Amino acid sequence: MTDLTAGRIRHTVVFTLSHSEGSPAEADFLGAAGALAAIPGVEAFQILRETSPKNAYRFGISMEFAGAAAYQAYNEHPDHLRFVEERWESEVAEFLEVDYEPL
Amino acid sequence: MTDLTAGRIRHTVVFTLSHSEGSPAEADFLGAAGALAAIPGVEAFQILRETSPKNAYRFGISMEFAGAAAYQAYNEHPDHLRFVEERWESEVAEFLEVDYEPL
Repeated sequence: MTDLTAGRIRHTVVFTLSHSEGSPAEADFLGAAGALAAIPGVEAFQILRETSPKNAYRFGISMEFAGAAAYQAYNEHPDHLRFVEERWESEVAEFLEVDYEPL
Repeated sequence: MTDLTAGRIRHTVVFTLSHSEGSPAEADFLGAAGALAAIPGVEAFQILRETSPKNAYRFGISMEFAGAAAYQAYNEHPDHLRFVEERWESEVAEFLEVDYEPL
């Protein structure tokens, strides 16, 4: 991982699903989440497994934006809003958003 | 940010300090935390500002390891243990560790 440079934003979210581990529904959700990578402005997109024994989250998504305008455009993009409404709100049990900027 | 590749681990922690914002004590803590980058096996080390309005954490540290052995060596390294005992335990108010591996 290269350093996050001035002005850039790393948006991350860790989450657990309501689906059972290894289920087709889990795989389907992760596949749908992967389509978020195609939204303009999204860079360095990766879906990850969360593996710390010190929290209960099972997955993470990490992406970067060139700046606040790109982040806002993503948040307001119809494909993002649709994913949140049609999938995230009904299939995610717990989540936490964590955003980083350089010190 | 390049993708986290198979076998690698990204260890992150988000936290708030007991020190007031912008205080010398805050800067001193962050400086001491920066020395963790010198521990063998630590890669892609960065101290970050946490900026999401959706959580209360103020800072983050992100680092990567080539694998579980390097992560364990870091955890057990005397410089890490000393930092946790002498600084982290008394100056960090809240924290959450989040570790990522590729799906």
